Amino acid sequence: MTPVRNAKLIFNEVPSGYPEPGKTTVYDASGTIDLDSVALNGSVLVKVLYLSADPYMRGKMRDASVQSYSPAFTLGQPITGLGIGKVLKSEKEGINAGEYISLPLIEWAEYTIPPVEILPYHEKIVPAKGVPLSVYLGALGMPGRTAYHAWKEFAHAKQGETAFVTTAAGAVGLFVVQLAKMQGLKVIASVGSSDKAELAKSVGADVVFNYKETSREQMDEILKKEGGVDIYWDNVGGSTLDVALGNANSRARFIECGMISGYNNKNAITMQNLMRIITQRIAINGFIVSDLYPKYNSEFNEIVPKWVLEGKMKYTEDRTQGLEFGGEALLELQIGKNTGKKIVVVAEE
Amino acid sequence: MTPVRNAKLIFNEVPSGYPEPGKTTVYDASGTIDLDSVALNGSVLVKVLYLSADPYMRGKMRDASVQSYSPAFTLGQPITGLGIGKVLKSEKEGINAGEYISLPLIEWAEYTIPPVEILPYHEKIVPAKGVPLSVYLGALGMPGRTAYHAWKEFAHAKQGETAFVTTAAGAVGLFVVQLAKMQGLKVIASVGSSDKAELAKSVGADVVFNYKETSREQMDEILKKEGGVDIYWDNVGGSTLDVALGNANSRARFIECGMISGYNNKNAITMQNLMRIITQRIAINGFIVSDLYPKYNSEFNEIVPKWVLEGKMKYTEDRTQGLEFGGEALLELQIGKNTGKKIVVVAEE
Repeated sequence: MTPVRNAKLIFNEVPSGYPEPGKTTVYDASGTIDLDSVALNGSVLVKVLYLSADPYMRGKMRDASVQSYSPAFTLGQPITGLGIGKVLKSEKEGINAGEYISLPLIEWAEYTIPPVEILPYHEKIVPAKGVPLSVYLGALGMPGRTAYHAWKEFAHAKQGETAFVTTAAGAVGLFVVQLAKMQGLKVIASVGSSDKAELAKSVGADVVFNYKETSREQMDEILKKEGGVDIYWDNVGGSTLDVALGNANSRARFIECGMISGYNNKNAITMQNLMRIITQRIAINGFIVSDLYPKYNSEFNEIVPKWVLEGKMKYTEDRTQGLEFGGEALLELQIGKNTGKKIVVVAEE
Repeated sequence: MTPVRNAKLIFNEVPSGYPEPGKTTVYDASGTIDLDSVALNGSVLVKVLYLSADPYMRGKMRDASVQSYSPAFTLGQPITGLGIGKVLKSEKEGINAGEYISLPLIEWAEYTIPPVEILPYHEKIVPAKGVPLSVYLGALGMPGRTAYHAWKEFAHAKQGETAFVTTAAGAVGLFVVQLAKMQGLKVIASVGSSDKAELAKSVGADVVFNYKETSREQMDEILKKEGGVDIYWDNVGGSTLDVALGNANSRARFIECGMISGYNNKNAITMQNLMRIITQRIAINGFIVSDLYPKYNSEFNEIVPKWVLEGKMKYTEDRTQGLEFGGEALLELQIGKNTGKKIVVVAEE
């Protein structure tokens, strides 16, 4: 068979600020692959369908010498992340041609042969009727699990309490808002646009503000007026975290999921309210979701697909069509232009 | 009987920085009390013997309109705190003349009649032979309980781990160092003088540095060289907290006991390493020791007096003789001049 095109999105340069399409990442359509004869060496041949663009990926766009919880992307190689594909051929027992699987660290490419050591982390996807495959990258995938697992582990939510959820219209935030509402909490939500505000309200957020149009003093006033914060879901860090500390109720729980405000600049953050950690007996917990998979995945698989099907757990997708716009998708995420879970559609089966 | 002198240490002025003896607090020896005829109104007459001077008292030297976990001192009234006294007369069932008791919120005065609502919080002290009464304000009192209870609750210490203990020669810190060593941890200790360094070493601290002679970069190097921090006992906050975050090992536990570096200035703190809360999955817990009393006090009363008698738990006292120097004692504590538990001796029985 004639080789077919196998385009890739290459990590080309470490960005100093926001990732720049065409510079930080470069779309390279020069490669080809022979789908019949390519050597699998015990692995599988995957046709990539949907890729998940996630905020944490900014952290991997760094010099490889800088240590962090997740290895840096390799310059000159495709960036990698969570994705869903269709298995075209398999030399791996337990994975069969024709199946859909999700895989971490999948190459941003049209076709890929994952390193065999990644294969144990595949999950087979048998999409529930009426649920698009791509939702397994969002509400039913890593973002949904991030929200569900950490909420279960750290929130200790009690009816009548108040949760303050940042990036509340994102894939994780929207899930958290809905979890909090299911448990009878009041939800204060911060978002980055009026569209996102509508979205957060539509899933039940009680008080919604656009952080881009809200000064530190105004945010402080809002939280005070609502009686303070019992649970803070942090996706942003920075001064929002500081204001949340300043308005934390006694025994508040701070769930540290992300600090996107710090991903794109190296400036130190000025904090005025750290002392409140003591005076208000605050518990702050950072986490990496994969640590919590063993504890909560089966419960999640039992419950959440039903919620999605029944419409009890709403989700949104913000699709970027075509791998060639992958760099734009990554940038949009960092500047908060996406509404809902960011998906790059490489192919629709 | 002729009235006798009843001197008091009065809260005279809210300090903007360090508390100034003679200004923040004023020694007033003009008062008298008739020990025979004074009305008790259902309370007890206490001859005050030992007063505990504690860092947290700085937080109470504030304008009463500023809320915090502990009420402000009242201007024009004696400051109050934990103390030990001898009961001279009693109208309260269950408390008898001749007994020694400790009481919270006891007036810094020679004699006092505590408000009846405080009496339920008294503890009778029957000092073990060989243990001075004042130790019930230190290793066997609130500081010891602070160390013991919070360590039990939050440290989750495992043999071979590394604890970084700040103000390691203080009443709480010294106790924490010894707890950590009992459990087979390596202890890095920060102290404020060479005397204190010797003290910390004498109870087993493995690596001791004087923070006044150690730059941020040097502190960073020390923590790195020792393989990072699994448990951070924070009494100081500020840049030490930031450097500890920068060197936290995966799943580190940060126990937020105090942030003395912030008590005397209102400057915001610049933090560079907050993101590590997430990447290293750090658990940070603030606490107020009285919250933990119900859970751990009886265990403490069972175990710790034995440790003290057997010399397994060492303590030091730094005594200030005379209530007239109470203001100096409070200042010494804030600038770190004390070595060990600061006690103001009002009378030796």
